[in-house]
Amino acid sequence: MRIVMKFGGTSVADLARIRTVADRVKREVDAGHQVAVVVSAMSGVTNRLVGWCQELSPLHDAREYDTVVATGEQVTSGLLAIALQSLGVEARSWQGWQIPIETDTAHGKARIQEINGAELIPRMETGQVAVVAGFQGIAPDRRVTTLGRGGSDTSAVALAAALKADRCDIYTDVDGVYTTDPRIVPAARKLAHISYEEMLELASVGAKVLQTRSVELAMNERVRVRVLSSFKDPTANDNEGTLVVDEDEIVEKQTVSGIAYSRDDAKLTVRRVPDRPGIAATIFGELATQNVNVDMIVQNLAADGTTDMTFTVGKADLPRARAALDGIRQQIGYAELLADPNVAKISVVGVGMRSHAGVANTMFRALADKAINIQVISTSEIKVSVLIAAEYTELAVRALHTAYGLDAA
Amino acid sequence: MRIVMKFGGTSVADLARIRTVADRVKREVDAGHQVAVVVSAMSGVTNRLVGWCQELSPLHDAREYDTVVATGEQVTSGLLAIALQSLGVEARSWQGWQIPIETDTAHGKARIQEINGAELIPRMETGQVAVVAGFQGIAPDRRVTTLGRGGSDTSAVALAAALKADRCDIYTDVDGVYTTDPRIVPAARKLAHISYEEMLELASVGAKVLQTRSVELAMNERVRVRVLSSFKDPTANDNEGTLVVDEDEIVEKQTVSGIAYSRDDAKLTVRRVPDRPGIAATIFGELATQNVNVDMIVQNLAADGTTDMTFTVGKADLPRARAALDGIRQQIGYAELLADPNVAKISVVGVGMRSHAGVANTMFRALADKAINIQVISTSEIKVSVLIAAEYTELAVRALHTAYGLDAA
Repeated sequence: MRIVMKFGGTSVADLARIRTVADRVKREVDAGHQVAVVVSAMSGVTNRLVGWCQELSPLHDAREYDTVVATGEQVTSGLLAIALQSLGVEARSWQGWQIPIETDTAHGKARIQEINGAELIPRMETGQVAVVAGFQGIAPDRRVTTLGRGGSDTSAVALAAALKADRCDIYTDVDGVYTTDPRIVPAARKLAHISYEEMLELASVGAKVLQTRSVELAMNERVRVRVLSSFKDPTANDNEGTLVVDEDEIVEKQTVSGIAYSRDDAKLTVRRVPDRPGIAATIFGELATQNVNVDMIVQNLAADGTTDMTFTVGKADLPRARAALDGIRQQIGYAELLADPNVAKISVVGVGMRSHAGVANTMFRALADKAINIQVISTSEIKVSVLIAAEYTELAVRALHTAYGLDAA
Repeated sequence: MRIVMKFGGTSVADLARIRTVADRVKREVDAGHQVAVVVSAMSGVTNRLVGWCQELSPLHDAREYDTVVATGEQVTSGLLAIALQSLGVEARSWQGWQIPIETDTAHGKARIQEINGAELIPRMETGQVAVVAGFQGIAPDRRVTTLGRGGSDTSAVALAAALKADRCDIYTDVDGVYTTDPRIVPAARKLAHISYEEMLELASVGAKVLQTRSVELAMNERVRVRVLSSFKDPTANDNEGTLVVDEDEIVEKQTVSGIAYSRDDAKLTVRRVPDRPGIAATIFGELATQNVNVDMIVQNLAADGTTDMTFTVGKADLPRARAALDGIRQQIGYAELLADPNVAKISVVGVGMRSHAGVANTMFRALADKAINIQVISTSEIKVSVLIAAEYTELAVRALHTAYGLDAA
């Protein structure tokens, strides 16, 4: 098998952990696999380098920022190659410009365009481990680029696609994807499999296991991704993690795979808006102009010919959203603007919903049984989300976890 | 004018000092010069990176060591580019592989083969400052190389040669080259000029202002080098430093330009060696085989047909030298091996010696007047060195400084 292994900053935080990573890589090599490893900067390093750039100039040149920040991964790649060699494993480090990992010129948040595996593949076939600096690439003008925060996940998935790897193992500080947050529901179960679509829905509503872009890329390129712990004893057998794969690979599909929650949103209600065509376009057009993302939207018609528009925005965008709506108050003539940051979005996710009716109803009933009021509802093909008062978050998550039969036996 | 400015680790130790360096560079740009800057790693960084490599594996792969260690200069180059831009100076960073600075494959102590100025020169002509990471290059196989400790001086001189720069300014923590160590002789004078040959002799006997290789390169490529302080107020007029140039450029040649001393050597005496052909070849051949460098050598014939061989080796090589000589004791049949680490080498250096007789005699007389015994003498075209007991070092340096008329008025 050919596998890509990715280790994040906490997994390579110091020399002892880098040695542990080398042990894990050696186990895969000893098992006869061809291995490429993608590494992040040692934890804390990137923040220090970013801080220096900020302190010198808040409006620094993104090309120089990338030159400075990319060194963090370069250091780790060389150190891990040394650690592997000291275990007798043939290894060499590769920087983005050496492979090359070609990106566009969007410095600081570049997107990978192409990875050329021509140099790596023959070496991997002879048993040499490729230790690749994550998070970085090279632009057409031969300047160093970085992919943005969490970009090493994307590096790993893109490399796995380019190398036609059988699997991309993302080692992290959790041991897989759970049916919900185990800190809230002790009976949460680790999922053996999850589909790309479900992982995307979970990632975008707060399950911070994988960077959203890396999941999209894995889905598009059909890369089998495994999420597993870099802290569990490598000799233990219970570190199988969670495999993120195509829906078709999952034989026993669950109706609902997981319950996610997010407290990152705020609710805005525009009261008593005259109910005439073009009002919604004016409101949401203005918010888009001000770069405010709107998520859930609901509109209620009142008896007096006015309407209440309720929607959610990111909490960080709340001041900007209020200012935008204040600015068009005269134009659209609404009565009142209400903001409520004390809300939570609870989502049930599962590809099985496509073929099962009644999933949403189970949700509404379970919440009603606990006397939890639903403020807004939104649905997608494989997800139902509701907005509730934030104080009910844990209660709601636990009730839904039980209602969908997800609790561990 | 086109100038190369080089700043060492203490000159870029933190963000405040990097800003000071940016100010100095801006002054040269404002004066209408084309400028390339060569930077070292922030002080302490290289030692930390080297330490990590050592700790992971004392016999680490030099290619990976170079990958890790070269990041220090990369960080500084990006940060200085940002600092310059924040002052309104157009600037960009350049890594060894980007220019490229081509070296051989001797990782950890690579030698520069060629620097291509094709990308840099047109940009410098339009006013863009090139901020070049010192100490690093790229090998023919496209792996990162480093030049060895102090290599940034060599980077700067080689870059100045490639760019046909009018001058290479080496900013350091001293403000020039002195007639001798001012800590020993308060009346020591800063030299306005010194020839390459003199600088080489002074550098090799302990005046640690410039790396020896960089002076050799400057001499071969006829690069005018200026040594000056990065800590003096840039607006002051007394920071002219010392210009290291071709002898022909120096109008008023001093007979003696400086007095150097070194306590890095140890003396070895092989007593009562049979005086027959091939003995010296056996002794020094064995030392060469054991990688021990021998410096001064003197041989005294005794009345009984034996000879005493006295020579100096680096103090660090003393155990290896003793072991080598013990190993051939049976073969050559000497009576005794004496080692004395408490010696100092005092050298007077000056291109004027070529045309002035009596320089050595002045030295011997001055030392005799202070009752200092000379143990070994060696001479070159522009240098006379003597070995004395280490305890007389300061006394000898002061006496010679006065005897050659070097004391400041």
